[in-house]
Amino acid sequence: MDAAPAPVLVSEVGPRDGLQSIGRVMATADKCRWISALHAAGVREVEVGSFVPPGLLPQMADVREVVRPALGVPGLQVAVLVPNLRGALAAFEAGVHKITVPVSVTEEHSLANVRKTRDQVMAELASIMAARQERFPGVVVEAGMSVAFGCTLAGRVEEAETLRMCERAAKAGVDEVGLSDTSGYAQPRQVYRLFRALQSMVGERAGGAHFHNTRGQGLANVMAALDAGVSTFDASQGGLGGCPYAPGASGNIVTEDLVFLLESMGYDTGIDLDLMARARACLQEGLVGEPLYGMVSEAGVPKGFRYARECA
Amino acid sequence: MDAAPAPVLVSEVGPRDGLQSIGRVMATADKCRWISALHAAGVREVEVGSFVPPGLLPQMADVREVVRPALGVPGLQVAVLVPNLRGALAAFEAGVHKITVPVSVTEEHSLANVRKTRDQVMAELASIMAARQERFPGVVVEAGMSVAFGCTLAGRVEEAETLRMCERAAKAGVDEVGLSDTSGYAQPRQVYRLFRALQSMVGERAGGAHFHNTRGQGLANVMAALDAGVSTFDASQGGLGGCPYAPGASGNIVTEDLVFLLESMGYDTGIDLDLMARARACLQEGLVGEPLYGMVSEAGVPKGFRYARECA
Repeated sequence: MDAAPAPVLVSEVGPRDGLQSIGRVMATADKCRWISALHAAGVREVEVGSFVPPGLLPQMADVREVVRPALGVPGLQVAVLVPNLRGALAAFEAGVHKITVPVSVTEEHSLANVRKTRDQVMAELASIMAARQERFPGVVVEAGMSVAFGCTLAGRVEEAETLRMCERAAKAGVDEVGLSDTSGYAQPRQVYRLFRALQSMVGERAGGAHFHNTRGQGLANVMAALDAGVSTFDASQGGLGGCPYAPGASGNIVTEDLVFLLESMGYDTGIDLDLMARARACLQEGLVGEPLYGMVSEAGVPKGFRYARECA
Repeated sequence: MDAAPAPVLVSEVGPRDGLQSIGRVMATADKCRWISALHAAGVREVEVGSFVPPGLLPQMADVREVVRPALGVPGLQVAVLVPNLRGALAAFEAGVHKITVPVSVTEEHSLANVRKTRDQVMAELASIMAARQERFPGVVVEAGMSVAFGCTLAGRVEEAETLRMCERAAKAGVDEVGLSDTSGYAQPRQVYRLFRALQSMVGERAGGAHFHNTRGQGLANVMAALDAGVSTFDASQGGLGGCPYAPGASGNIVTEDLVFLLESMGYDTGIDLDLMARARACLQEGLVGEPLYGMVSEAGVPKGFRYARECA
């Protein structure tokens, strides 16, 4: 084993990105049970939902009822996604620890996703930061740069354009600027270059990586991000949300497979894969018949497998 | 794009590793059509079968009838697997360009796989090399080091042990020493270390990487191997052979997903993904109903995608 690598944070986004991508609505109690099981397995941060109009995303209509018990789970970092000031204020009031504001790198995606121009999104971000500074100073705000590596609408995205938008988000005062491969366009060399450039530009405020596994490149991109020094990775248990092995695939990278990758290499995630299987059972019980994915869950860990913490 | 990376050879092993891992037997004519279609898509090397007793692997009983037309495909490097001297001689006589001799790194796997101790395998390898030197000087011989990264029977494999077996194979005079992750045990840092150590030890004779995607880590391991300077990768179209997304998964990495990864990063594979879809159709026609995998085949290439050769 190489010298012990820095710990890595695996941020579980299934309850938000996964659940919002499927047609069915998971019951509130099932969501809460799942989130507790994730935490019991060692997951330290969960994006538990998003503060959006319930008419838009009925899957997220109970976000307040999910946030409340999640805040009672000792040590759990409770994150949510918010598309605008209204959502941010609701999230702040609800007492979350962290909000992620999606900021599209392309004008096309911005208009399609939040019906705002990028300038309007930046204005909204400024208002959110003002509210945070005035009334909710403890809450972490991340700008999640959507389609940072390519866009289903605009196609190729110039790296300079992504960085320009990152700079604008940083200037708005966010605590973290993360890069999202919203549609599975990223390739590893690009991932490495963009994260390094981001770090040069915003230093400690360079945030995590949010990869989708649409074209099976998710863990290859994780490797490049790790090499660039990224230490926070979003993932979704069971690849929930957008079947990763089917047409139009758009699921996040699979949490279990990511944890196995990281632990195998000596990165301590704090997560236990046997206990993740219990969390997966909770997820499946809450969504009977919903397809779940992930190869480590199917194949199990190899004979002789050791967690990073067992090698220290 | 970074400075143009060196070209990479994608060696298609589906007609051997894929077909030998499924219960059904593909018709000879279908195999030949598939191999032609792979070549038409730009694939330059195909492992077309193995010279083993037909009673043992009925899927490979027609290997001579597959080799013959494959040798007529202009420019195609025709490779086969052989487990012993008898198979090697048959392959040499058949006129193949390359043979791969599997050499298990662990005694347990060696006994289970070829019913020989490692010493016996080394003796067999020496006989094969003697026959090659005397009568078939043009044929390339590769030692494919099985369970080089871990073993379903022995569990963890010490890197020193893998290297010791590589050294013995090199001393036997083989042209290439490749490393195989037979059971999906490899992790990227280990892949990097072992290939670098192999290169230090045997120089130009360090061969390619043969990864299985059992635990979804295949392309992450490819990244590490690329970083180590590996330029030949085995893969199987459609992940054929050992369902990569099911219990007991053991399929090779998926050729289409690998090609997409490489091309996205600027590695020229010479392979066209649209034409690979035609080859995939040939494969499917020859094995109606057999599950095929791969995420690029499902999702397609991203909008604005360019091959490495289009960026030069």
